Formats: sequence, structure tokens, C-alpha cells
Amino acid sequence: SRSINLAVIPGDGIGQEVVAEGLKVLSAVLPQDVKLETKEYDFGAQRYHATGETLTDADLDALKRHDAILLGAIGDPSVPSGVLERGFLLKLRFAFDHHVNLRPSKLLPGVATPLAGQPEIDFVVVREGTEGPYTGNGGTIRKGTEHEVATEVSVNTAFGVERVVRDAFARAQARPRKKLTLVHKNNVLTFAGHLWTNVFNKVAEEFPEVTTDYIHVDAATIYLVTQPERFDVIVTDNLFGDIITDLAAAVSGGIGVAASGNINPSGAFPSMFEPVHGSAPDIAGQGKADPSATVLSVALLLRHLGHDAEAARIEDAVSADLAERAGLPARSTSEIGDALAVRVAG
Amino acid sequence: SRSINLAVIPGDGIGQEVVAEGLKVLSAVLPQDVKLETKEYDFGAQRYHATGETLTDADLDALKRHDAILLGAIGDPSVPSGVLERGFLLKLRFAFDHHVNLRPSKLLPGVATPLAGQPEIDFVVVREGTEGPYTGNGGTIRKGTEHEVATEVSVNTAFGVERVVRDAFARAQARPRKKLTLVHKNNVLTFAGHLWTNVFNKVAEEFPEVTTDYIHVDAATIYLVTQPERFDVIVTDNLFGDIITDLAAAVSGGIGVAASGNINPSGAFPSMFEPVHGSAPDIAGQGKADPSATVLSVALLLRHLGHDAEAARIEDAVSADLAERAGLPARSTSEIGDALAVRVAG
Ligand SMILES: CC(C)[C@H](C(=O)O)[C@@H](O)C(=O)O
Ligand SMILES: CC(C)[C@H](C(=O)O)[C@@H](O)C(=O)O
Repeated sequence: SRSINLAVIPGDGIGQEVVAEGLKVLSAVLPQDVKLETKEYDFGAQRYHATGETLTDADLDALKRHDAILLGAIGDPSVPSGVLERGFLLKLRFAFDHHVNLRPSKLLPGVATPLAGQPEIDFVVVREGTEGPYTGNGGTIRKGTEHEVATEVSVNTAFGVERVVRDAFARAQARPRKKLTLVHKNNVLTFAGHLWTNVFNKVAEEFPEVTTDYIHVDAATIYLVTQPERFDVIVTDNLFGDIITDLAAAVSGGIGVAASGNINPSGAFPSMFEPVHGSAPDIAGQGKADPSATVLSVALLLRHLGHDAEAARIEDAVSADLAERAGLPARSTSEIGDALAVRVAG
Repeated sequence: SRSINLAVIPGDGIGQEVVAEGLKVLSAVLPQDVKLETKEYDFGAQRYHATGETLTDADLDALKRHDAILLGAIGDPSVPSGVLERGFLLKLRFAFDHHVNLRPSKLLPGVATPLAGQPEIDFVVVREGTEGPYTGNGGTIRKGTEHEVATEVSVNTAFGVERVVRDAFARAQARPRKKLTLVHKNNVLTFAGHLWTNVFNKVAEEFPEVTTDYIHVDAATIYLVTQPERFDVIVTDNLFGDIITDLAAAVSGGIGVAASGNINPSGAFPSMFEPVHGSAPDIAGQGKADPSATVLSVALLLRHLGHDAEAARIEDAVSADLAERAGLPARSTSEIGDALAVRVAG
């Protein structure tokens, strides 16, 4: 489409700084005839402290009218753990049915990894985003006493698993290696495990060209550090996906370059794009944050909206910028953003 | 005590080979006046295929009479996923209330790690062993249909959390760095997360010398590959512990050297010691398995039974053996066992 109506949520801490650079690069990459409209929203710790609100029905109505959402980061030590996570981030993912949580991992040339021997890393995790242990089901009895019992219920439906598994198969089919790995813990979580495994095997029949395998989540963490090149596309549950994508980010250059999309493939609600990193209050306001993860999230956003050429230009720019970093003096958040804006425009 | 009455469960695949070496080293290290009695049990895939049984009440009665249990590995591709895990391994951990699942990670000199720069790694994970998502609570409705719903319930009790947290504090207190990290996901799993966090903070008051911190499980996987030296003792839930201890094993020399204890500190039931690795059917019967993880599990067993000097002798022997490996031709399972037996006796 020839216009993009974007909701921008800078959020807390470094969220503000990195989103500014994301928008800078977005403006620079778009052709003249694509009209970019942005509207900023003030969700996060400040608004919570001022109003007690995290995300209201009116907010959801307003956000719904955009083509996509760019998010920096939400979270601050002044807010009790869970309040903004459940009250804003997860509420939005669930309300807009962001069931495909897309997290690519690619170790770009010249980028440092904690792994020895600079392995080849280029895979995508398709994390389910609306089920599993993230549903908020569960509860507590006898809270605060020595007889307290707290439960967490992981909810898994054939409907929810099948749609994300099918999405992952389609992504695997479109990649050169055409390989899809299911990560779960079906030897212990046998109820959910059987559902995931059966649905996976059923959908596999529709994609005869895709090679499949299965790995337990614990073993997957071993492979991620010893043989990351074995992965092409991974599909997994919400919690396992949360855990392994942080590890995946760490081995493929760190959370400074890890992008993600919270995608509703049907388009019924806008999808949301955000760096995997958090608000990093310890370095906020100092111009120290690397905006690359946000800029790469903008690329995912553009690809989602059909602007593939612009997405590729951004990815190439980040790749070239990272390749030249070693040996150069450290740059500020906005200096990196400026350099990327020049590259994508040029 | 001057006698050890040991239940031996070689199990499947390489379990047979590595347990033989564990017993060889155990016999070699024990002083003449400690009487070692062993009784072998045939649990695992073969017995399951022959009888349909995994672990009967009579089996539990028999095992109960031993001072401790040495396990190789259970599991075979001929048995559906979950049958032996739930029917044998988890059944035993739950029946004997093995609530302290102890998994030390130490990168020994000369041992290869997938991490660059040979970091210092020396920490212990205290994984809860009888609660969380491992209880088998949950179920399935409309199985096999497009309307299937499968749930998994994580059950957490103040009783269960407090005893393992207290055990972990005591272990941290006894170590030079006196540091304990709680790993959970309390920003999403808020019911269980609050219970764990509150109990942790309460028990912390009894251990003023122990420094504490908290890390989300996803972030913990990042630290395990970027700053593993930051950990001293970790306490965590059953599933998170399962995941991070495989990663911990991978970065600190691989599952060939990762030992574990399933401990009932009260002594009401025998504790069980086993390598973290599985039955590895692909290399079974070829003498290729490294028995070091089993031998180190024997050291944990001896320390649990009060034979500290012998435990230390085994650990020193494994350490010395590993330090000398680089550059030497590969040895068979029993050659490594022989070498270790000579070292501990000498
Ligand atoms: C902040 C938290 C709720 C979130 C999650 O667990 O999904 C984060 O870790 C992520 O991966 O996006
Ligand atoms: C085999 C399986 C049931 C077991 C577990 O999940 O606890 C294993 O992974 C382990 O870590 O001992």
C-alpha cells in the first residue's frame, strides 16, 4: 500500500532512544510516494504511575486503527514485576491475537558471538504467542501462608497449535533448506506434548518437501550452543520460545541485534514489532543503546506490510554497518541511527 | 557408615556401559573396611517390552531398602515418548520425594567448551524435583479432533518451594562466594512467581551472609553463555532447572561430564544418582560413551553418604584424567574407567 499509518510506542528506558532511530531509518528508506503517518502513544511506567492504567479498551480501539505498531520496550524497576508485562505487553499480544511470534537469528559477518569458532547461524524461531503457560490461567490459595498453593495452567488448543505450526511450515517451505524442527518437552508434558506432536505430524503431510525433526527443549539449548547450524526454522510453544529465543539472540550477536514480530497473519488486527531486548534502565538516557535490533524490527514490519525491497535495504544496511564496527570507536545510539539512515537512503 | 548397600539400575543404551565403569571406580576408591553390596535391577525398555511394567509397587519396596541408587540411563526409541520417563524416572523421583535435584557445573582445566575465551565456570543448580509442571496434572479433551484442548498444570506449594530454597541457601552458605540466584519467570507466571519470590525472600532473612539475586529464566540462558562466572548457586523450579542444566552442562564441558543427584535430604528414602545424559542409543554398545559423568555421579553419591574423602578422590581423578586427554588418542568407555580406577586407588 502507498501509505503506512503507524502506531509508535517508545515505552520505557532505552525504548525511547531506539524507537527514535527506528523511525529515522524508516523515513529514510521509504520511497517519496509512500506516505508515512505516525502517532505516538505513552504506554509504560510513567503513564501507569500517573493514572494506574496500563492499556484500556479505548487504547485498544485506537491502536486497532493503525496498519502496524512499533514498540521500543516496556518495563521499569519502579513497577512491580508482572504489572506492565501482563497489563500491557501480554494484554496487547492476546487482544490482537498475535499468535505468530517471529524471531529470526542470523549471525552476521564481523559480529561477535560468545561461541568459539564463529559458527554459521541462520534460523528463525516461530514462537506461539497466545497460548501455553502465558494465558494467565491458574491461581493461588492460602496466599502468604505456609500452606500456599499456586498453580499455572498451560492451555493448548488444536486450533491455536495448528495455525502456528502451519505458518512455520510455510516459512520453512519458502527457505532454501526447507527444514522445520519442533521443540517441546513431550516426554514430560505429555498432554500438551501429544497435541503439539500430532498436529505437527498431521500438518507435515501437507508439506512433503519440508524435512522435519523433533527435539526436547532441554536438548535444544545444547544444540543452540554446540551446533546452531543444524537449525533452519523452529516452531515451539510460547514459554519454550521465550527461553530459547533469548539464548538464540545471545549466540547470534546479542540482544543488541535481535528483532521480533508479534504477528497476526490474518490482518484482523495490526501486528507489532519490537526488539527482543528490554528497557535496560541501567543505561537509559545515555545514548549507549544499540538501535540495530529496533531497526531490524522495522525491517520485519516493512516485510509484513509488503515492502520487501525496503526491508531488504534495511537488513543490508545493518549488516554492512555491523561488519565495519570492529576496531571503530563506539558510537552513540543516534550516530548509529544516522549511519543506517544514510546507508538505506544511498 | 561402614557398608554401602547400593541399588544399581544400568537401564538402556549406554547406561549399561557407563554404570559398569561407575561401579569399577567405586570399588577401587572404597577403603577395605567399607563393605559394598550391590543389587542390579533390570528397569528400562527391555523389561517394559517383556512385561509391560515400568516400576511396580513391589519394585519401589525393594529399592527402598537400599542406601542409595546408581542409575545409568532410561529410554529407547522403541518405547513411545513419555512412557519410561513418566512411568519410571519421574515415578521414582516422586515416590522417593527427591525434591533436591542437584546439578553441579564446573569447567575443568583442559576441557573443551563451546564458549570462546575459556570462562571460569563453577556453580551448582539446585533444581526442585517434585513439583512444578512435572506433577502430571492436566489433561486432554476432544483428543485427536480439531477441538482438542490439552492442559498442563504447574503445581507449586509453599512447603515444596521452601524446603528446596532452604537447601539451596545452606549450600550457598557453605561455598566461598556465598551467592544464591533465584531463576524463574515471575513477570509472566505471576502466581507461581510470587510464591517462589516471597518464599525466597523470607528464607533469605535466615542467611544474612548469602548474597541473593533474581533472574528471569530467559535472561539466565543469556548469562550462561556470556557471563557464566556470575553464578555460584542457582535455585529454580523443576522445568526451568531441566532446561538450564542441559545448557549449563553444554557450556561446562558437555553432557559427557555432567553429574546429578536426585536427593531426599531427610533420608526417608534412598537418593538416586545419575549422569545428566540419556541412553544415547546411536552409540550404545560401541564403547564410545564417556563414563566420566557417571563416575562423577558416584562421587555425589559418596558425598551424600558421608564418604567425603573418597568423593574428593574421584573428582580429582576425573579432573586429572580430563586435563591429560587433549592430544591423546580416543579411549574406550572401559579404558577410561580403568584409568580412573587406577588413579583413585593410587
Ligand atoms: C517481558 C516478557 C513478558 C516477554 C515474554 O516473556 O514474552 C519478553 O521476555 C519477550 O520475550 O518478549
Ligand atoms: C528424561 C526426562 C524425564 C528428564 C527430566 O526432564 O527431568 C531429563 O531431561 C533430566 O533432566 O533428568
